[in-house]
Amino acid sequence: MPNDRPNNDRETISEMTTGRLSVYLRCLTYLQSAGHETVSSAELAERFHLNSAQIRKDLACFGEFGTRGVGYNVPRLREHLVHELGLNRIRRVLIAGAGNLGMALADYGGFNAGGFEIAAIIDNDENKIGRRSRSGFEVLAWDDLDAVVREHRVDIGVVAVTAEAAQSVYDAFADAGINAVLNFAPTQIRARPGVKLKSVDLRINLESLSYYLKNVEDGGA
Amino acid sequence: MPNDRPNNDRETISEMTTGRLSVYLRCLTYLQSAGHETVSSAELAERFHLNSAQIRKDLACFGEFGTRGVGYNVPRLREHLVHELGLNRIRRVLIAGAGNLGMALADYGGFNAGGFEIAAIIDNDENKIGRRSRSGFEVLAWDDLDAVVREHRVDIGVVAVTAEAAQSVYDAFADAGINAVLNFAPTQIRARPGVKLKSVDLRINLESLSYYLKNVEDGGA
Repeated sequence: MPNDRPNNDRETISEMTTGRLSVYLRCLTYLQSAGHETVSSAELAERFHLNSAQIRKDLACFGEFGTRGVGYNVPRLREHLVHELGLNRIRRVLIAGAGNLGMALADYGGFNAGGFEIAAIIDNDENKIGRRSRSGFEVLAWDDLDAVVREHRVDIGVVAVTAEAAQSVYDAFADAGINAVLNFAPTQIRARPGVKLKSVDLRINLESLSYYLKNVEDGGA
Repeated sequence: MPNDRPNNDRETISEMTTGRLSVYLRCLTYLQSAGHETVSSAELAERFHLNSAQIRKDLACFGEFGTRGVGYNVPRLREHLVHELGLNRIRRVLIAGAGNLGMALADYGGFNAGGFEIAAIIDNDENKIGRRSRSGFEVLAWDDLDAVVREHRVDIGVVAVTAEAAQSVYDAFADAGINAVLNFAPTQIRARPGVKLKSVDLRINLESLSYYLKNVEDGGA
């Protein structure tokens, strides 16, 4: 359930646009690594199966990086998106829950690269405290949350606990001064003003595949 | 990187629209459970922070479920979306990789409910074969892949292995007759025609929070 209203005043840039900016950034990073200097919205659309009118609309918000007949300057537009998404600053990430999901997220490549750093994992299970994830992140004691957030300068809290515990973890994160929370628990958290909540629904990806399979079976493919 | 071109002929319904249909379905399920009979696109937009013009556009593809001045019939539109997404048929899901991520996904609520059933987990590590996830799904031997896919009538394969192993797992899934694959490994898989690939990029969610934090810091909030 989308329960995280963007509370900044740039209403032209919606939550969904932000997601598309991340997609464009991946495309541009790939093009840059492949040595491309410029790309048109039509090429971007064709190569990455996107919508060229949508690309032009989305990127229009960020000023003019395109030249008619030439296209966008790849490194400049990429750099601009990095800045726009705030990825040129380091964000410290604390994961609550040292179960399978929390440990998997700690070792997930994208969570400890390009603007993000895993600070630690935190759990209230005595048997888990002191352990380390495969890539070496330590499980700290939940009781030390305030000190951990302060000492590790945590920016983003990740909720990787059970649905039952998710709300209290969000609230404790908020009390500890964390302003952005990513929730993986399959439950709806009541968000506080000023403490941004983004909930990840992994099932949506399965539903997209279900839609594809249905259309194949129904002879649409 | 979006490398999964929809290869059905209903081009009006893009990959992104499918994602929004899933979001609308969640909203309608919530409204139905709360006893709502009808909802207008404006109410949907207001309650769930969506775009009302987008809602009308997306739902227009599926025929007329709205009545001017009254709105959409909640149970009927919900039922229609369930059918449209193919969620009225059972899809059997096989997870490759019995590490932290695979075990977490096996026990993730949405992967074993409402149209989806976890068939098993499969791994080539002798030490993991025969173990069970917390909710009881067994880890089977990778060498038995063909038999497992046949006996468990697997529809969807989930790649929860390392980036290095992801391509070979996708290829083996395809050879075994699986037509839809969900990839969690942070790498780009070369997809085969007719074997739909959807890659999940968990980092996009962190980037959205980074964007929010940047705008707060820059005084935009």
